[in-house]
Amino acid sequence: MRVDIGNALAATARPGVSADALDRLDDRVAAAHDRIADGMADSEFGYAALNLPETADPAAVEAAVEPLADADTLLTVGIGGSALGAATLVDALGDGLDYHALDNVDPAHVRDLLADLDLADTVVHVVSRSGTTAETLANFLVVRDAMADAGVDWTERTLVTTGVEGNLRDLADDHGLPVLDAPEGVPGRFSALSTVALPAAALAGVDLDELLAGAAAGRDALSGSLYDCPAYAYGAVAYALDVRGASVNAMLPYAEGLETFAEWFAQLWAESLGKDGLGQTPARALGATDQHSQLQLYRAGPRDKLVTMVRPESRPDCAIPETDLDGLDYLAGGDLGGLLDAEFEATEASLAESGVPSVRVELPAVDAHSLGRLLFDIEAACVLAGELYGVETFTQPAVEWGKDAARGLLRGEADLPEKDVLVVE
Amino acid sequence: MRVDIGNALAATARPGVSADALDRLDDRVAAAHDRIADGMADSEFGYAALNLPETADPAAVEAAVEPLADADTLLTVGIGGSALGAATLVDALGDGLDYHALDNVDPAHVRDLLADLDLADTVVHVVSRSGTTAETLANFLVVRDAMADAGVDWTERTLVTTGVEGNLRDLADDHGLPVLDAPEGVPGRFSALSTVALPAAALAGVDLDELLAGAAAGRDALSGSLYDCPAYAYGAVAYALDVRGASVNAMLPYAEGLETFAEWFAQLWAESLGKDGLGQTPARALGATDQHSQLQLYRAGPRDKLVTMVRPESRPDCAIPETDLDGLDYLAGGDLGGLLDAEFEATEASLAESGVPSVRVELPAVDAHSLGRLLFDIEAACVLAGELYGVETFTQPAVEWGKDAARGLLRGEADLPEKDVLVVE
Repeated sequence: MRVDIGNALAATARPGVSADALDRLDDRVAAAHDRIADGMADSEFGYAALNLPETADPAAVEAAVEPLADADTLLTVGIGGSALGAATLVDALGDGLDYHALDNVDPAHVRDLLADLDLADTVVHVVSRSGTTAETLANFLVVRDAMADAGVDWTERTLVTTGVEGNLRDLADDHGLPVLDAPEGVPGRFSALSTVALPAAALAGVDLDELLAGAAAGRDALSGSLYDCPAYAYGAVAYALDVRGASVNAMLPYAEGLETFAEWFAQLWAESLGKDGLGQTPARALGATDQHSQLQLYRAGPRDKLVTMVRPESRPDCAIPETDLDGLDYLAGGDLGGLLDAEFEATEASLAESGVPSVRVELPAVDAHSLGRLLFDIEAACVLAGELYGVETFTQPAVEWGKDAARGLLRGEADLPEKDVLVVE
Repeated sequence: MRVDIGNALAATARPGVSADALDRLDDRVAAAHDRIADGMADSEFGYAALNLPETADPAAVEAAVEPLADADTLLTVGIGGSALGAATLVDALGDGLDYHALDNVDPAHVRDLLADLDLADTVVHVVSRSGTTAETLANFLVVRDAMADAGVDWTERTLVTTGVEGNLRDLADDHGLPVLDAPEGVPGRFSALSTVALPAAALAGVDLDELLAGAAAGRDALSGSLYDCPAYAYGAVAYALDVRGASVNAMLPYAEGLETFAEWFAQLWAESLGKDGLGQTPARALGATDQHSQLQLYRAGPRDKLVTMVRPESRPDCAIPETDLDGLDYLAGGDLGGLLDAEFEATEASLAESGVPSVRVELPAVDAHSLGRLLFDIEAACVLAGELYGVETFTQPAVEWGKDAARGLLRGEADLPEKDVLVVE
């Protein structure tokens, strides 16, 4: 992975990081790297995620999905970190598998989706570490019922990833379902390279060995200086820009296959760093489409944005046919990829021209090795940023209040505090 | 539409709007409304969008699509405002039509999509007011070629929306294609209720009369006080919170069908208001899914957010089956919609508990009338906010630099300014 932070420096951008400030920050990166390396060596909670390139067991995943590999459709039942990793891998790399993530409890959507699927030809992958996630378990109960109604033996089509104890483990044991252990010490949002997401990738034809080899290359590249490590260069600059006023990080991949990656990034960044009044707000975007939506704001709005531009260095061919339409001579004989790359470079230059900081991230291609590297490096960037902010990167305490309140409401046990109301209708 | 701004007031939230400040702001709303009403009366550029409930001609749209209505698949070829309105309507209300928006020029995606479609059974709707939008025209040339390769007469399957002059108009005239006029004086991002998006909705089985009746109800509700007009209540509070520090507006619908609406909102808000260093940054979200992704940041991160929570008051049924799984007694016998609503209310209360401002927007249902009302009211809110900021709501000058630079690159005529480079790899 190649990270170019030139357009995030103070010579180009406001806010921007000066060369001296970057040198001073590099001392803190060295200390943070020591902390991270210790955490990895001891497989501490959270830091263990960065060991997945070695600890993941692709053969076990492949063995678990092999009896189900004849299905044309996969339904992941999970939410948040239990769904986004799989969707990211399949949307970027999947080859022909009809994939759906059931990651919300909207009755209209669930009904429509189940009515559309051929359940006899569908694998259901249920993912919940605790085995008690309300949305996931409710959806699973509905799906199981729908399979029974369709005359499908759900025990033949269901795969489970969960912790070593709990509801889902008991259920899997009782019915002899294939079950994979959720990785120890790895929060959901850091679990894309584990049993949480790899089964979906395997069913979608992704080469797990290549994916993990890419991640291992990221691990091997970790080092005590941001100038030697692309992951840390990205994490350090994002942090430095945030504390200088770039409180929004717009993730703008120029590849449709990476649209879900931007969503995965948004979860990782928001839930890991959004603590103690700190944390950069991720904005999900897609190039070139969002040039016609968000770029006006990025260039001319408040000076509170870092734009992260991601692209593959190679793309498949798709020639633009010749035409006699007026004013389109500049397109003719070209290729869609050439047009997309010209827009990438022009947009990057247009941000620099107006002094908006951007970082360029380049991958060899949208392939398994590059994606493994990208996910690992962005995770490492996030862990580094967490060290620099001094927050608890691997927990999400602020969501517990709402979970408890929702359970209380459903049990009829608890009332919510009275709400201030000012209705206009 | 019902807008509850109680949780955005200073009694609950920081930042929050005090009751006195809201009263003072209402004088400015009255003046802005006069300006908007004048613009509508004179069909001025941009303001003309708010006349679409009356000026749109659903019968003409239905007549244009009628000969194509046997197709199972629709492909919109457009970008930005020429695609998002159609996607918003079809994703919320469409019934069974296989819908795709070709709104990017990624060669991998375009190739895969065209390989998957049965082009003989596909309607192509090409949308570009100017007839020269690079991405749209390049994609159209590729699609036309693919149809020819598949032995399909593209002139039998193509519908055009464009201006009264230009490339696409000439093309349509030369080949006798059905063609609809892009609405006069209506910027793309305000064109969801026009010939730009209504053809897709009609093909997807949406009741255009109901949709426009909902919008007309929004128009009829415009008045000189935010206390009497939900659209203005929303626009005024969003503006007031932004200038008090809520520089991010997280659009969080609790309905899968409104996921694309959040994207449409993000375009409308960003491109209309992101000017002169001003403008609130939209963040696209989805409830309940993003409780497991963004909520940690919203509650515990920087105090720079307004959370806009949208939900329908009625949902279809989808019962949660009984279960003997441990700890899930509170779900049993309930309904997915009840779970989703409990999460909505618990999340809203959890934001209030931590002092984060939110606004609640409620629709009777996700149906044509309600969606027409929602789109109209959010457009009116945006126009009002533009008046309060004092920006040029209806233009997007900051994107021109990049468009020119991309054309220059592709023509081989212009070099970009030299880039600052600091590469880590």
